[in-house]
Amino acid sequence: MQAYWKSCPGIRKDLEEVRAVIRTVLRNRNPLLSETLDKLLSRKGKMLRPAFILLAARMSRKPLPEKIYRIAAAMEIMHLATLVHDDVIDRAATRRGEASLNADFGERRAVLLGDYLFSRSFSLVADNASMKSARYLAVGVSHICDSEISQSRRFDRADLSVRNYLHRIMGKTAVLFSLSFHVGAAENGLSPRVASRLRRIGYNVGMSFQIIDDLLDFTGDENILGKPAGGDLRDGIFTLPVIHAFRRDPAGLGPLLNSRSLSDRETLEQVIRRIEALGGFEKARFSAALYTDRALRETSGLPRSEHRDILAGVIRKLLTRSY
Amino acid sequence: MQAYWKSCPGIRKDLEEVRAVIRTVLRNRNPLLSETLDKLLSRKGKMLRPAFILLAARMSRKPLPEKIYRIAAAMEIMHLATLVHDDVIDRAATRRGEASLNADFGERRAVLLGDYLFSRSFSLVADNASMKSARYLAVGVSHICDSEISQSRRFDRADLSVRNYLHRIMGKTAVLFSLSFHVGAAENGLSPRVASRLRRIGYNVGMSFQIIDDLLDFTGDENILGKPAGGDLRDGIFTLPVIHAFRRDPAGLGPLLNSRSLSDRETLEQVIRRIEALGGFEKARFSAALYTDRALRETSGLPRSEHRDILAGVIRKLLTRSY
Repeated sequence: MQAYWKSCPGIRKDLEEVRAVIRTVLRNRNPLLSETLDKLLSRKGKMLRPAFILLAARMSRKPLPEKIYRIAAAMEIMHLATLVHDDVIDRAATRRGEASLNADFGERRAVLLGDYLFSRSFSLVADNASMKSARYLAVGVSHICDSEISQSRRFDRADLSVRNYLHRIMGKTAVLFSLSFHVGAAENGLSPRVASRLRRIGYNVGMSFQIIDDLLDFTGDENILGKPAGGDLRDGIFTLPVIHAFRRDPAGLGPLLNSRSLSDRETLEQVIRRIEALGGFEKARFSAALYTDRALRETSGLPRSEHRDILAGVIRKLLTRSY
Repeated sequence: MQAYWKSCPGIRKDLEEVRAVIRTVLRNRNPLLSETLDKLLSRKGKMLRPAFILLAARMSRKPLPEKIYRIAAAMEIMHLATLVHDDVIDRAATRRGEASLNADFGERRAVLLGDYLFSRSFSLVADNASMKSARYLAVGVSHICDSEISQSRRFDRADLSVRNYLHRIMGKTAVLFSLSFHVGAAENGLSPRVASRLRRIGYNVGMSFQIIDDLLDFTGDENILGKPAGGDLRDGIFTLPVIHAFRRDPAGLGPLLNSRSLSDRETLEQVIRRIEALGGFEKARFSAALYTDRALRETSGLPRSEHRDILAGVIRKLLTRSY
């Protein structure tokens, strides 16, 4: 977190407050639980969602209400809950029967830990946010689950449409980004017009962010990302570069896009080179830039302020990030 | 549900309303999701938690507000969420490496389905309940997770204390029962004094209910329960009969209470007979009756009404149930 926001000392300070709230809220007497929580909190997340809540709230000329930190903490805890459950899901999908007793114990704990985080998050929201924000957040989580469930892990032609992909990443990422901006704006009394604009910014930033995330799964540095390139593709998750490439060469690429071929390291690498050659990465990068442009255009329509410029800087930074 | 409430037509009618709300709230365009939801909703639950909310709300002379049905639906959906995740957890603990692709797919879906149910439940609560009730419910879920996490699946002397057991079932069951009564009372404007009494009733009913549930795991009809006797014990979950028996004969029973011995069918049956001979079942039944007595005493302190008598009938029925 520290490293990511080095160039924005204001946000960094805000996020340190949020982190302190998270640590307090999740303090627990249960030794098993607190051990797992400590491990979770030591991971270095970017804390984008709370950063967006705070940035949006700071667009107002009113002083920042204390509760904003707690609402931002709730949003991050909710995000952590989805990450913890994602881990269970991914392990379930990739482990393929190699479960050890130890992994099972971890899985059991992970399901419960996720539920615990969800409930702590909703407590915080119920204590601090307006009912309207609470409702928005709950609906946001429904969306995430909904889109995750529809993201089939098996080869499916429907997964190879751009429309389908965009719908998936909207549910997975853009909805919660959009909500973060909206809740930050609404809870600090910004006008509905400005709040709507911020919501649109969140949507576009979220779409751009997820496209780049999916790109980095192919092109990112394995050492920084901590996982080998093409992991999504191997797991049968077809992201934008694959879809673009497939549309240019369905006959050539189609037969290779099944889990049996892709679990072979060499075939996987060959498919990745083919995606590159067909311009899949380039086209995806272009799509991300389009969403970023839209977000920047909306940002320039916000009332002039120091925080508007900080937001624009953050949006640009996210487009060119390498992790 | 129908069968269980045959003798209480009033509750049955209320619960049919709740069921209708649940079906509407969980209606979903995602075919994978609605298929799984249909399967889930076809299970015949007793719908105790919504029944308690409605019973508590009906203690008031005020007409029942429409929203009570939606709040009761939220509570049942939350309970369903914990059941779905319990399934994942139990499978994780018992499967021991036999995961098939199919089971994995089911597991993945189950984690997400549970999250989806949690979020729908919180949406409903945020839309219909007071902030205070929303907070109570969220804290209730934290409690459940907390106590589930501390329920270790490995042999642990600490699991063999009565105090520890009571604490576990409080978190697992009594907290949510208590909350159901409290929320029903509070949302229909009952006085804090009556609401507190109802909360205590819920706590005692919950403790009695869970002790009997744990007893039925040993003594219940396998055909009705759908699982072989002693399943908890085999999975290393030590419930009240085991604990009482162990305290009377630690030297004899202690060495048998490890997962290696208990996975052997014959040893398991031998241990169950030993628990019986040591009076473990009888003592547990006695404890349940004590909690039921307390609940009935509190109930008789409620203002006289038709629904007070219905509640007393329900509490007695739960003590003598066979499933």
